[in-house]
Amino acid sequence: MKTLINESLVAEQNQSLMPALQEDYDHLGAKLQRSGIDIEAVTQQAAKFQVAVPSWGTGTGGTRFARFPGIGEPRNIFEKLEDCSVINQMVRCTEKVSPHFPWDKVSDFTELKGFADDLGLGFDAVNSNTFQDQPGQEHSYKYGSLTNTCPQTREQAVAHNIECIEWGKTLGSTALTVWIGDGSNFAGQSHFQRQLERYLDSAKEVYNALPDDWSMFIEHKMFEPAFYSTVIQDWGTNVLCAMELGEKAKSLVDLGHHAPNVNIEMIVSRLIQFQKLAGFHFNDSKYGDDDLDSGSLHPFQQFLIFNELVDAEHRNQPGFNPAYMLDQSHNVTDPIESLMNSAEEVQRSYVKALLVDRDALYGFQDSNDAIMAANTLKAAFNLDVAPILAMARVRNGGAIAPIATYRESGYRAAAGEKRPSSGHSGSGIV
Amino acid sequence: MKTLINESLVAEQNQSLMPALQEDYDHLGAKLQRSGIDIEAVTQQAAKFQVAVPSWGTGTGGTRFARFPGIGEPRNIFEKLEDCSVINQMVRCTEKVSPHFPWDKVSDFTELKGFADDLGLGFDAVNSNTFQDQPGQEHSYKYGSLTNTCPQTREQAVAHNIECIEWGKTLGSTALTVWIGDGSNFAGQSHFQRQLERYLDSAKEVYNALPDDWSMFIEHKMFEPAFYSTVIQDWGTNVLCAMELGEKAKSLVDLGHHAPNVNIEMIVSRLIQFQKLAGFHFNDSKYGDDDLDSGSLHPFQQFLIFNELVDAEHRNQPGFNPAYMLDQSHNVTDPIESLMNSAEEVQRSYVKALLVDRDALYGFQDSNDAIMAANTLKAAFNLDVAPILAMARVRNGGAIAPIATYRESGYRAAAGEKRPSSGHSGSGIV
Amino acid sequence: MKTLINESLVAEQNQSLMPALQEDYDHLGAKLQRSGIDIEAVTQQAAKFQVAVPSWGTGTGGTRFARFPGIGEPRNIFEKLEDCSVINQMVRCTEKVSPHFPWDKVSDFTELKGFADDLGLGFDAVNSNTFQDQPGQEHSYKYGSLTNTCPQTREQAVAHNIECIEWGKTLGSTALTVWIGDGSNFAGQSHFQRQLERYLDSAKEVYNALPDDWSMFIEHKMFEPAFYSTVIQDWGTNVLCAMELGEKAKSLVDLGHHAPNVNIEMIVSRLIQFQKLAGFHFNDSKYGDDDLDSGSLHPFQQFLIFNELVDAEHRNQPGFNPAYMLDQSHNVTDPIESLMNSAEEVQRSYVKALLVDRDALYGFQDSNDAIMAANTLKAAFNLDVAPILAMARVRNGGAIAPIATYRESGYRAAAGEKRPSSGHSGSGIV
Amino acid sequence: MKTLINESLVAEQNQSLMPALQEDYDHLGAKLQRSGIDIEAVTQQAAKFQVAVPSWGTGTGGTRFARFPGIGEPRNIFEKLEDCSVINQMVRCTEKVSPHFPWDKVSDFTELKGFADDLGLGFDAVNSNTFQDQPGQEHSYKYGSLTNTCPQTREQAVAHNIECIEWGKTLGSTALTVWIGDGSNFAGQSHFQRQLERYLDSAKEVYNALPDDWSMFIEHKMFEPAFYSTVIQDWGTNVLCAMELGEKAKSLVDLGHHAPNVNIEMIVSRLIQFQKLAGFHFNDSKYGDDDLDSGSLHPFQQFLIFNELVDAEHRNQPGFNPAYMLDQSHNVTDPIESLMNSAEEVQRSYVKALLVDRDALYGFQDSNDAIMAANTLKAAFNLDVAPILAMARVRNGGAIAPIATYRESGYRAAAGEKRPSSGHSGSGIV
Repeated sequence: MKTLINESLVAEQNQSLMPALQEDYDHLGAKLQRSGIDIEAVTQQAAKFQVAVPSWGTGTGGTRFARFPGIGEPRNIFEKLEDCSVINQMVRCTEKVSPHFPWDKVSDFTELKGFADDLGLGFDAVNSNTFQDQPGQEHSYKYGSLTNTCPQTREQAVAHNIECIEWGKTLGSTALTVWIGDGSNFAGQSHFQRQLERYLDSAKEVYNALPDDWSMFIEHKMFEPAFYSTVIQDWGTNVLCAMELGEKAKSLVDLGHHAPNVNIEMIVSRLIQFQKLAGFHFNDSKYGDDDLDSGSLHPFQQFLIFNELVDAEHRNQPGFNPAYMLDQSHNVTDPIESLMNSAEEVQRSYVKALLVDRDALYGFQDSNDAIMAANTLKAAFNLDVAPILAMARVRNGGAIAPIATYRESGYRAAAGEKRPSSGHSGSGIV
Repeated sequence: MKTLINESLVAEQNQSLMPALQEDYDHLGAKLQRSGIDIEAVTQQAAKFQVAVPSWGTGTGGTRFARFPGIGEPRNIFEKLEDCSVINQMVRCTEKVSPHFPWDKVSDFTELKGFADDLGLGFDAVNSNTFQDQPGQEHSYKYGSLTNTCPQTREQAVAHNIECIEWGKTLGSTALTVWIGDGSNFAGQSHFQRQLERYLDSAKEVYNALPDDWSMFIEHKMFEPAFYSTVIQDWGTNVLCAMELGEKAKSLVDLGHHAPNVNIEMIVSRLIQFQKLAGFHFNDSKYGDDDLDSGSLHPFQQFLIFNELVDAEHRNQPGFNPAYMLDQSHNVTDPIESLMNSAEEVQRSYVKALLVDRDALYGFQDSNDAIMAANTLKAAFNLDVAPILAMARVRNGGAIAPIATYRESGYRAAAGEKRPSSGHSGSGIV
Repeated sequence: MKTLINESLVAEQNQSLMPALQEDYDHLGAKLQRSGIDIEAVTQQAAKFQVAVPSWGTGTGGTRFARFPGIGEPRNIFEKLEDCSVINQMVRCTEKVSPHFPWDKVSDFTELKGFADDLGLGFDAVNSNTFQDQPGQEHSYKYGSLTNTCPQTREQAVAHNIECIEWGKTLGSTALTVWIGDGSNFAGQSHFQRQLERYLDSAKEVYNALPDDWSMFIEHKMFEPAFYSTVIQDWGTNVLCAMELGEKAKSLVDLGHHAPNVNIEMIVSRLIQFQKLAGFHFNDSKYGDDDLDSGSLHPFQQFLIFNELVDAEHRNQPGFNPAYMLDQSHNVTDPIESLMNSAEEVQRSYVKALLVDRDALYGFQDSNDAIMAANTLKAAFNLDVAPILAMARVRNGGAIAPIATYRESGYRAAAGEKRPSSGHSGSGIV
Repeated sequence: MKTLINESLVAEQNQSLMPALQEDYDHLGAKLQRSGIDIEAVTQQAAKFQVAVPSWGTGTGGTRFARFPGIGEPRNIFEKLEDCSVINQMVRCTEKVSPHFPWDKVSDFTELKGFADDLGLGFDAVNSNTFQDQPGQEHSYKYGSLTNTCPQTREQAVAHNIECIEWGKTLGSTALTVWIGDGSNFAGQSHFQRQLERYLDSAKEVYNALPDDWSMFIEHKMFEPAFYSTVIQDWGTNVLCAMELGEKAKSLVDLGHHAPNVNIEMIVSRLIQFQKLAGFHFNDSKYGDDDLDSGSLHPFQQFLIFNELVDAEHRNQPGFNPAYMLDQSHNVTDPIESLMNSAEEVQRSYVKALLVDRDALYGFQDSNDAIMAANTLKAAFNLDVAPILAMARVRNGGAIAPIATYRESGYRAAAGEKRPSSGHSGSGIV
């Protein structure tokens, strides 16, 4: 496996940080031992945890007002994969990359697969794009794609989804994520029911093109780009559509796609219960679909989501097999740093959720001891699990201090030399 | 039919207001005629419109901080029915009353039915109450009712729902509305999935006790009285539960029970499409479940909801038969006045929705003429339909100016004499 | 005054619509007369009402995901002014245009002024832009403009604001609107207090460059483009800054820039009371800064805002002199149609507010007759004032049916021929 | 000082927990030492931290739907003080109690002061209550108190506030907290500006009655009990009123009183900057004024607030002297347990904020290194500071494990015997 950051640099950095890490790890081990928890078992689970990164996340994001490019932004999927390999080299829990088409379309997908293989990377769910018009495209998505009132436009959108599946097969993906921007900006602009009927018709065509071992992930979103109504506006519509389509269709949760104040962890629980949880697009948000770094503002909420996930694992909940992916917009940071940091934040929530004393929790729940139930969760959340995360990275060949080591490597500056700025984002986002 | 306000007073008031009304009505008729609309047909539909009133709405509401009683509040279901009959006498679109048990429990339900018959009133959906403890009750609902971890408590709650059905049968009701306050105030307090499983188990027992021609209306609510999670938290969980239970179970929409910014008219459309719309608890809200007077703050939203309802009627949507009810808390007004006003507001939305040019609308929707689609709705909304509402009332025997006539009657002052204040609300709300 | 749509077409269209309009107008006049209101006086006030249009609003807007251009979009400020003149020719209440720099920068501002004069247009507040980087700009605004930690960047932003004032002087403007995108995406990224101190220092430099008869309008916004914190995040910070700066600084209210559920009409009242209301950016929104067409979703809220404005006028509130402007993003409509429609919607709210019986309202307020106070507002809101609006337009030389007449003129198709699409928005928005 | 829980029980419990605590404390000390932080200095600051408890918080809270009493609820201020003394005995950071009048009114305030002295308790800010009517009260607050349109009602409310000051003087308080429920439920019900003018007139009368060393804390709230508008609706109105009144008036922040998504830590910073921060009512909330236990849902937000507070301390910000108080509603827990837990949660945030490397943070802020700035805060937040909190308690004479020790003591069961339930809350809340 090819690595783009000098491995001896990683080793050297780790060496200097190891004594303190070992001390912290040993103490945490002793402390957990008091509660009967074997830190080694937890570290092994942490070391197996994986969250995919989005190819488009390696470019600098922006808003409708402006995009302020960074230096050395990747200009194509090959350069994006290089950045992803750096991320994974440092954190060792991001082996898969989720591509987005046509942004990541290439002439030879077999070549692309080989390029990724060499970097030790695989491909996660493929993403179709019918929320933008591409140059030369026959029909515009201005008024919708899979739900457009024009049948030719719908067919074009269906065909694009099907070609995404084809490309994904070559890449080794087994899932198609469908997010559409369809909706309306005016009351009356769209007939809600007919619009969803058209969605279901189109989605069935896509569904029918899925290989046997593939899944279709449906993504809901409250608003943006449409500002009065969105076709798949919430998990309710999402799950009903997934039920209409069939077993292979499931509902994807993006943390920034809900109404204010909504209890997202409860939605996760509901989707688990009804065996329709596809997985996640992790990010954080304060106002809308802010696409901030995962766990940067609401770490306890992210922990509560993982509490549901680990609980389902613990209970061997039937049909439980969610896909984890980051989906963020890095407007003011180096995307590589944000993605490394966020992967670690997601992993942190997972590890803390592993440390919840579930038997105690169930007991407090059954006896309505609300404060002790709450404190049982908080006891796990309040633990400083950084030593477990760092040790898991080291054992997998990663860096104890990913950002520091990455900065020391000079990778970004070198990318700046190799990749002169075009002023346009390789991410595809305007 | 017995009327509590002197009919000659009504006639006299109407007489003085009729000339202006007739002039306005005639002009509106001429104006609508230009668009090919027959005002008489619309007035006849308006005259058939009905919305039920809640028995508990006749008492002054309050908040957890205080309740400021009004004068002459009804002290029992008989006095509540008297107030409801006054409302209906004035507005003539509120023939049904929705009772709440055990608040409205009586020793002889046949007597109660007869009392209502005499006043020309019928009974709408019966409401069970497992969100409060009643004196002498064996098990407390402090930690839940239908979802309590204690089986005896769940059984008690199930049994109460079943007795409500029994009482409702005598009263001529054909629906049971189930709203529970169950939820949690702390993360971890309740196991989300097990809690909903218990709900479904309990609800099935209630469902199985429904007579053949009855429906079960499930009500969702985002928060309050529970402040971290609510079991039936949104329409998604609501509709999934209704599907689990069976055909007789449907989802009720209370306008104040959603997350901020949520597109409620779209939820209504979704429930219509999936044949699960039970009906409505109409009210208005700005912040939470404020239970303000219907249409008092968001008249256009209420119109958009009726636009969906009238559209479903227009399309002969299968399974479409929603129940309409007011559900408000009258903290600073005379409840009779608020209920009369609100019934009229709901009827106003209905009539405006009738006036939408649906063929034009469909055309604009199909051709993506967003602004003309929006303007088609606005054209109907902007019409002043007060003359139609007033004329429909007059023809049904009601008052042109309900509040003015009611005030003139001195009914409230007389009630104050007859019903000395206890300081406690007859509504049952603290 | 030059008009771009054939005046005989307007006359002809009006002629065919006049009989029905006259009938409706006469009836409304008779109806208002019953309440002692002289319709002619109201129509005269309506005819004097003005709301400015934003130069950038004539181009199609978009989101960070995509922009779907329309045909014949204006490519520079001269073409934007042509579109604005068409709007004003039809609606006759949009005589002023608000320019945005450097988007509307020209080499000869005197020429621009003359061009506008010929079209009968004037210039409203000038808008500076320090939320985007311009080609060749020395310092980037990626991390802020007036509040940047780098003094040179702040100076650059100050200098740009001062050059906007200079250009505005030539154009006949008397106000500078300052909206900055400064904020942060991470907790900790910015030191809140030091950041606002820098804002005040920079803003003082701009303030000191204002001519004697100019005002500085400060615009607050909750979020976007920054997603954790915004420097001028709400009216509280806005008004405190305006107070620090001095009398010429006032607070501008954009309807889409507030937190969910916020009572905007109350903020308007507070700013009036403390003599700091600069004016408005009118638009509508359901979720965030959606920039939807004014009054398209919340017409009653817009009416309540005008109720405050007309009330202040009625009371001769000291220092009351607000500026009215549209600020919208037209993503799915012809911008000319949306701006005409929105100008009328704003005017509609104004006229309805004029019709409120203020003496009655004050009486009900004083006696705590909540329902009659509410009904007094609703009585005005429920009136169909379309005849007044249309008659005011006719008398000013505009069109009874602006959109229909505009469509009939073929202006957009002709623009499509004259202005071949560049694929980029002339609006400046990405 | 009298203690109500056997001190030997506390000592015994602590003894068994001390070995593990010492081990954790020593390791944390060693770890912090690596960053140059002396754990002893931090523990001493932690030991000095104080947060007041609300007398009314010792009773079980409820909602407008129901209140489910606990056992042994205090029936008067003397029993409330007993419960408060238990809280303080366990956690040793809650020496002060905030009384609420007339709920806590007694015939002899000197006796009450002596009773508190014996328990080692003092009195924090006194709270007036004009949001409820009291038996025998001449004028009702149904339509407002300090802002009522009736001058006699306003005078009554002013007089009550002044009597609260008098009682507070005897008790040793130095601040009056004024929260009013005044507002409106209907658009039009109140004239916003006149209502605020009446507020200012009334508040000035109260302000003028303040002793020289007293402060007046103004509390804002978005909604509830009024559901369309609230007089002091946000920090903007709050701070403007405080400025009108004078130096002794400051703005109090209750964490549950803001609009959804609002950045509260930024409001705190603004109030600090403008020298108007009175202090806090700590609690947590997900939807509205949920009054959940502090830090139970948004621990990172609470940390960010303390980050602002500690930063202001660090910078010796002029006029910075905030009052800290809990204000929660304990609906499903033993109030004593919730208050102990919450005091610790608040203290936890404070200690974590002390551990922020401020010099590093300022450096990252100045150089716009957003991710390292964020990580600097997170580094402190992620630390497990439980050993510092426990050690601070031990040194002050408290319990290492407050809830466990309290439960072991049997205090609640004994209270249940001594205080037979009346079914009504001693808290005064309905």
